[in-house]
Amino acid sequence: MTQKKTDTNRPTVGIIMGSDSDFDIMKEAVLVCDEFGIASEISVISAHRTPHDLEAYATSAIERGLKVIIAGAGGAAHLPGVTAAMTVLPVIGVPIFSKKLNGQDSLYSIVQMPAGIPVATVGIDNARNAALLAVQILALSDEALMAALLEFRKKLADASRQKTAKIREKLHAKS
Amino acid sequence: MTQKKTDTNRPTVGIIMGSDSDFDIMKEAVLVCDEFGIASEISVISAHRTPHDLEAYATSAIERGLKVIIAGAGGAAHLPGVTAAMTVLPVIGVPIFSKKLNGQDSLYSIVQMPAGIPVATVGIDNARNAALLAVQILALSDEALMAALLEFRKKLADASRQKTAKIREKLHAKS
Amino acid sequence: MTQKKTDTNRPTVGIIMGSDSDFDIMKEAVLVCDEFGIASEISVISAHRTPHDLEAYATSAIERGLKVIIAGAGGAAHLPGVTAAMTVLPVIGVPIFSKKLNGQDSLYSIVQMPAGIPVATVGIDNARNAALLAVQILALSDEALMAALLEFRKKLADASRQKTAKIREKLHAKS
Amino acid sequence: MTQKKTDTNRPTVGIIMGSDSDFDIMKEAVLVCDEFGIASEISVISAHRTPHDLEAYATSAIERGLKVIIAGAGGAAHLPGVTAAMTVLPVIGVPIFSKKLNGQDSLYSIVQMPAGIPVATVGIDNARNAALLAVQILALSDEALMAALLEFRKKLADASRQKTAKIREKLHAKS
Amino acid sequence: MTQKKTDTNRPTVGIIMGSDSDFDIMKEAVLVCDEFGIASEISVISAHRTPHDLEAYATSAIERGLKVIIAGAGGAAHLPGVTAAMTVLPVIGVPIFSKKLNGQDSLYSIVQMPAGIPVATVGIDNARNAALLAVQILALSDEALMAALLEFRKKLADASRQKTAKIREKLHAKS
Amino acid sequence: MTQKKTDTNRPTVGIIMGSDSDFDIMKEAVLVCDEFGIASEISVISAHRTPHDLEAYATSAIERGLKVIIAGAGGAAHLPGVTAAMTVLPVIGVPIFSKKLNGQDSLYSIVQMPAGIPVATVGIDNARNAALLAVQILALSDEALMAALLEFRKKLADASRQKTAKIREKLHAKS
Amino acid sequence: MTQKKTDTNRPTVGIIMGSDSDFDIMKEAVLVCDEFGIASEISVISAHRTPHDLEAYATSAIERGLKVIIAGAGGAAHLPGVTAAMTVLPVIGVPIFSKKLNGQDSLYSIVQMPAGIPVATVGIDNARNAALLAVQILALSDEALMAALLEFRKKLADASRQKTAKIREKLHAKS
Amino acid sequence: MTQKKTDTNRPTVGIIMGSDSDFDIMKEAVLVCDEFGIASEISVISAHRTPHDLEAYATSAIERGLKVIIAGAGGAAHLPGVTAAMTVLPVIGVPIFSKKLNGQDSLYSIVQMPAGIPVATVGIDNARNAALLAVQILALSDEALMAALLEFRKKLADASRQKTAKIREKLHAKS
Repeated sequence: MTQKKTDTNRPTVGIIMGSDSDFDIMKEAVLVCDEFGIASEISVISAHRTPHDLEAYATSAIERGLKVIIAGAGGAAHLPGVTAAMTVLPVIGVPIFSKKLNGQDSLYSIVQMPAGIPVATVGIDNARNAALLAVQILALSDEALMAALLEFRKKLADASRQKTAKIREKLHAKS
Repeated sequence: MTQKKTDTNRPTVGIIMGSDSDFDIMKEAVLVCDEFGIASEISVISAHRTPHDLEAYATSAIERGLKVIIAGAGGAAHLPGVTAAMTVLPVIGVPIFSKKLNGQDSLYSIVQMPAGIPVATVGIDNARNAALLAVQILALSDEALMAALLEFRKKLADASRQKTAKIREKLHAKS
Repeated sequence: MTQKKTDTNRPTVGIIMGSDSDFDIMKEAVLVCDEFGIASEISVISAHRTPHDLEAYATSAIERGLKVIIAGAGGAAHLPGVTAAMTVLPVIGVPIFSKKLNGQDSLYSIVQMPAGIPVATVGIDNARNAALLAVQILALSDEALMAALLEFRKKLADASRQKTAKIREKLHAKS
Repeated sequence: MTQKKTDTNRPTVGIIMGSDSDFDIMKEAVLVCDEFGIASEISVISAHRTPHDLEAYATSAIERGLKVIIAGAGGAAHLPGVTAAMTVLPVIGVPIFSKKLNGQDSLYSIVQMPAGIPVATVGIDNARNAALLAVQILALSDEALMAALLEFRKKLADASRQKTAKIREKLHAKS
Repeated sequence: MTQKKTDTNRPTVGIIMGSDSDFDIMKEAVLVCDEFGIASEISVISAHRTPHDLEAYATSAIERGLKVIIAGAGGAAHLPGVTAAMTVLPVIGVPIFSKKLNGQDSLYSIVQMPAGIPVATVGIDNARNAALLAVQILALSDEALMAALLEFRKKLADASRQKTAKIREKLHAKS
Repeated sequence: MTQKKTDTNRPTVGIIMGSDSDFDIMKEAVLVCDEFGIASEISVISAHRTPHDLEAYATSAIERGLKVIIAGAGGAAHLPGVTAAMTVLPVIGVPIFSKKLNGQDSLYSIVQMPAGIPVATVGIDNARNAALLAVQILALSDEALMAALLEFRKKLADASRQKTAKIREKLHAKS
Repeated sequence: MTQKKTDTNRPTVGIIMGSDSDFDIMKEAVLVCDEFGIASEISVISAHRTPHDLEAYATSAIERGLKVIIAGAGGAAHLPGVTAAMTVLPVIGVPIFSKKLNGQDSLYSIVQMPAGIPVATVGIDNARNAALLAVQILALSDEALMAALLEFRKKLADASRQKTAKIREKLHAKS
Repeated sequence: MTQKKTDTNRPTVGIIMGSDSDFDIMKEAVLVCDEFGIASEISVISAHRTPHDLEAYATSAIERGLKVIIAGAGGAAHLPGVTAAMTVLPVIGVPIFSKKLNGQDSLYSIVQMPAGIPVATVGIDNARNAALLAVQILALSDEALMAALLEFRKKLADASRQKTAKIREKLHAKS
């Protein structure tokens, strides 16, 4: 799905995570951006270990050309909310799963923001959906992207449709 | 905060809820849109009682000029996800609180969408943040709106700052 | 338990799931139907990826001769509820386990339907019970099936009774 | 909705509850049966205080002409499952809310039945849906009832549709 | 710890479980009874698959000489409560862990009994404590057993005390 | 139910609670003891505020003639477990409800004791069942008490049986 | 308990909260400081509405003479963790209760900090304990404060001891 | 980070745990103390198996020169709270994870202490943070330690900063 390419290297989607241990989840967001030809930039920035770096990142995001920030974090998971506090760009939060408390801590910390400062929260570990949401936001002012999204949905449906044949085969293979 | 007015009646934000019992929460979204001069349209549409109306609503949303859909729902709370399945517009989900299960059911049903179809979830009962998120999305291609948002954040900070004096007074009034 | 056979290929139980990753759980429902000689039909249909297919499936279910629909789904798990919204056939929901949130999300999303549109929910991953419930429903107007169910319960009890001897042996083998 | 009447007093739906404190919830099931002209019978029977009465009730249910049993219970909530263990009639369980544990205890105790003995579980306090599910089951072999259900769904949709106008009025009344 | 022996084979502690899959947990209860020289009897009896066997077991327990019943069950976990409903012997419930819902379902179903019919609930999978509680109950009228318990507690404390040396060694082995 | 009276004032059941705010719940345990003619003694002792008093209480319990200790506590709820650690008498724990965390904290803190030191846990706020469990334990060596318990269960069943007539009346009063 | 007075107005305990709606809870911390003669300072500072004020507050805390910071917050509750990220003073977090999610969100967001940046978390709404913990920390280098704490504990025990008489009176008043 | 050494063997931080199975988690606290040159002492003491040892430990802690006690415990997890009840030293609690209930039991039992007796609770299994909190407390009266902490935070930030390069490399290695 490389039908659309922004010819500049300037990223429009900033992807950040609190720890490099979140990378296996968060790299999915990069891949989705690549699929849609959107330049993204991935960084490790911690609300707790490097709070001043985060402030610099968030307060300069607009002038650096970012349109959407995707922030993944687990446990106390303050990263998305603190970022959202320092920019008016849409911030999408990805709660990272941990076996302790099953991701409930990450989810609640990200989604339960106080009135005034929203974080757009997606499902636990669902960095793929975070990026798709970013694409849907960017597509509002980009017709080619909107067309690519409609195409993506069509392929998603087609792929799903092929699964019925697949499981029926599996079933008969057993009997 | 009426510094910006779209002179058309065509709504850009669609606000829907599964039941009119959600109105007291969801009307906050209307008020925020009004504050920012954004035309919105509020409707009761149920994923369960009027599924075909919902399909008509969601599949025609883009051509009717909507840019963002805000959907509030409680309990099984399928409304935001089913809407998101039938449009590529950003859909923002508001989990509505119920004393049964404390809103956990609404939150999980809305946020845990499968890969491919995101819902931007905000906090339980936080329709205000849903609308602010919509404004932040719309502001990406509307400089006046971006300026209004920065002004809004400034006022939010100022209001918060005045609270210290207020609580110190309360404290001394007691002693 | 093949004492009863409907001689037609027309399925009376429709078994659907949101994703083929649910197949290992949902195939148990097929096996139970087979045990009772009930024709069933298994399909992958997603409330989110193929919403229009689901509408076609649900609204035509009665005329296609289905009597009961069993729907398995995990996470946001909208499939059973959305199906139930578009047919008056009994819909049985199977919440699929995921380590994230331990199946709580699937269970709550399926069981907490609004008044008016019920889903008959069984235990997490318990597709076997979903099919047995379907059999119990069908047996209301099928005496042979009712007899088969009574026989099934008798065998279930006998199998359980033989376990005491088995564990007592294990215990003595250790000492 | 009294278009259909069974001219016999013999109840086809048995409605039981563990304690009379559940009556305010469970009476909704009676009302729904009345709406659809289905004879029902309501009783207090406890799996713990009157276990032998429950055994007598469940094992004689079929010969007494019952087709479906609806059982409401809170807390440990064993009533639906123990009933299901002693009959092959479909048993529908209604978890009753209690502020302690928010109904989680009632829900889990009812829905998490072992393989072999299903309980068709509906939402917390949702006795109305339990009865509607019973109607949907009975309608499989009763065309008039099926027609009444389709009519019911139509009215449900119509009622929902009228809510949009209602909330828009409320909204304008404020401004 | 075989200082005390009842010279009869007649068991005073009945240990039951809903499924033989619970045996690995429940055999711990047998071992504790053995340690204290108490005759026990282990059986698989299901509240759902063999409800009439359970009734026979519970209602005859006193005349068969049982003093305490230990019942382990998972999921809906009705076994301890249903047993308690049919005997006035103390019934001790052991919630069995399952990854689905983390044992919350088993725990809530066992502990949240209605007023009138208590179940003495111990920790999840803690069959060992169930048996120790049985021993503490039996020791109220058996001085030798009381002495054995005091000795048991002393050994428990001694074993715990030796762990400090053990972990300090481990620590130094690393440095 | 005063058919049995111990003619001595020496209490056999000790009832303790961490705070006098638990009294409204815990007094139910006293009432049950009174009903069965069992001498009980109620005290406020805190595992945290008066740990040395608790030690004195628990370590002298046997010599003071206590047979069973009932301990109610909320929140961290250490009282039952710490008492159990210092006596081999059966200790029955009553988790006290608090709206914060819905009693989950109290329940988990009381029931999840480590292997070696059991606490017999009853339902949240169910002091009545705690006392009934104590009666069931004491009845093992007291035939009159056993007879009283059987009588109590009979009355419990009778009372439950009268509820069916009561709710049917209510139902008809409405129609 | 005014036996100790610091003669300066310079506060050693900083008490902050995200919103003035938390004041009714957090003022308890001020009262405890007052009881022990410790100068405290209360402020409303929000991690989301006034992030730059928070940074100024936290990074200057040491030089302004603060020794301990107590931060109360509800919902996403980032305040304590973000403060802790910007100072090496001990930060004590008070999770504020909300009926939505019962305070679980506040608790998890505060306590589940990543390795490197601790927050000393106390119970939900327990600002009193937060302040007592601050006093215990300050007492490590202040013998008079240590003595006051020992005296406080003694009074706490005495007050608890008087409750037994009180509840026994209540009990007899009823009979 | 061995820039600071207390030349005495007398430990200032006492590290205790209920069971040696907690050692793999709790040894992290020792390592942090070592890093900062703080003498610590690790012991296994159980609130349930050796309650009198715990009393001796806690009541003598101040005179033995301890300044802070770190207590790790799982399940009912009474150790930190019972310790806190018997000393006015700051007690830091570490909830130990168990798959049963996901650490919720340990966390709630430790953090939900009654007013009057605080426990400074850190995240589940986060013994490292417990020790860092102890260091932050000790640093209030030790300038060298304060300097070491500032240095530690600097290194933490630097380590975090190097992760961005690392994950970007990983990302490119894939493409």
